[in-house]
Amino acid sequence: MKQSLVIVKVGGKIVEEPETLGKLLDDFNSIPGNKLLVHGGGRSATALAEKLGIESRMVNGRRITDSAMLDVVTMVYGGLVNKNIVAGMQARGMNAIGLSGTDCNVMLSDKRPVKDIDYGFVGDVRSVNAGFLASLIEQGIIPVLAPLTHDGRGQLLNTNADTIAGEAAKALASAFRVTLIYCFEKPGVLMDENDDNSVIPYLSYYDFPRLVQDGTISGGMIPKIQNAFEALQAGVSSVLITKAGNLDRLTGTTIAL
Amino acid sequence: MKQSLVIVKVGGKIVEEPETLGKLLDDFNSIPGNKLLVHGGGRSATALAEKLGIESRMVNGRRITDSAMLDVVTMVYGGLVNKNIVAGMQARGMNAIGLSGTDCNVMLSDKRPVKDIDYGFVGDVRSVNAGFLASLIEQGIIPVLAPLTHDGRGQLLNTNADTIAGEAAKALASAFRVTLIYCFEKPGVLMDENDDNSVIPYLSYYDFPRLVQDGTISGGMIPKIQNAFEALQAGVSSVLITKAGNLDRLTGTTIAL
Repeated sequence: MKQSLVIVKVGGKIVEEPETLGKLLDDFNSIPGNKLLVHGGGRSATALAEKLGIESRMVNGRRITDSAMLDVVTMVYGGLVNKNIVAGMQARGMNAIGLSGTDCNVMLSDKRPVKDIDYGFVGDVRSVNAGFLASLIEQGIIPVLAPLTHDGRGQLLNTNADTIAGEAAKALASAFRVTLIYCFEKPGVLMDENDDNSVIPYLSYYDFPRLVQDGTISGGMIPKIQNAFEALQAGVSSVLITKAGNLDRLTGTTIAL
Repeated sequence: MKQSLVIVKVGGKIVEEPETLGKLLDDFNSIPGNKLLVHGGGRSATALAEKLGIESRMVNGRRITDSAMLDVVTMVYGGLVNKNIVAGMQARGMNAIGLSGTDCNVMLSDKRPVKDIDYGFVGDVRSVNAGFLASLIEQGIIPVLAPLTHDGRGQLLNTNADTIAGEAAKALASAFRVTLIYCFEKPGVLMDENDDNSVIPYLSYYDFPRLVQDGTISGGMIPKIQNAFEALQAGVSSVLITKAGNLDRLTGTTIAL
């Protein structure tokens, strides 16, 4: 029987403000067994860019990353957010290690080809060094992954944190029984976006097209759920969509094939 | 017989500009065997702080680190400089991992007590996780250490890169035959500061007080050499002071007890 591994992705202001971060790390600490955290940091990146007079341009929720913006996200994701999360974990007795995709080749990627849109220095994941991550986890270490990858030729690349979590989950599924948890601002996928009590407890591959068609699921939730299905098809045991505040009880929307 | 380990500390603009960084990494790559790199990044930190309207205050060459400046150095040292060095190493076939002191508790420190000067969020190293560093090195991985530590209670602290290198060297001396190399802008300790051909090839513990007294050695070189003596007393095999451009031939000033 494989050991379990819980992979949590958290983004948004919860990881960027000391008070909410503290609560998140307490909740994360309450999850038993092997763990891995993937974080975002977009609000801080946008804030730093603004202070530096660098314009943030988003297309379909993705950040256009020119050279100056790449430096910003390298500083914010790889430095500020990552190291503060790790320090907060260490303070709670969790032996964490902060990693970007370039550290030990954890995630190699290819610069996204220019089609309609030039996303700039954005990488699509090519490979994951699952062996290295697994060896850390087996030593009781908690990897904390920043959403940065590299092309193996010296170029850092900005990569969506949901994608990082999904790719890590898929790559580690051969070594662990993986539960992938996407945290966002709502307690799950909602039937009514204005009613937090309308969480869909169980969302299957067969329900999905209908819920997209009738508009129940829209926007950034669509790629998130597509990532979830891909992860399940690649051997991830279960995927949960919830809000960070529910990490201590693990309620939300379970995605199933 | 212990395996050898070469620890190189480089600071200054050489690690902060793509062109000089490339040459440095080529030279570093030419050093055979186990390696560890410690970097600075002060110029970039000062430049970013200036853009953000944060004043850089230095006392005796040390940076006063208030909360805003701590964020700056966390971004620059832990993110921008560290991740670009690691990406450059990976591109050259060196399997590097970027680490701050909080990652796997690599370096725990104590916030410096306020005496005459309040240095702010500056840490004096308390302990080094030599076991974790040694296990990486034994796997053929090159640790790349940013000059950041933490107090174990969630607080990141800014720590001088020379000190980081010295502490790493001392802590790893029981597992490896350690050579510690401090790179700075001159080819070694000079008899005449205006003549790069006046390198003192061999500087002993007995010569040191005289050379300080007659003014040959002054300023920031004094703590650097004191660090070197401490490292030797703690079991480090040899210490070399040189410039980064000489890393491919390892000439410079050898410090000896």
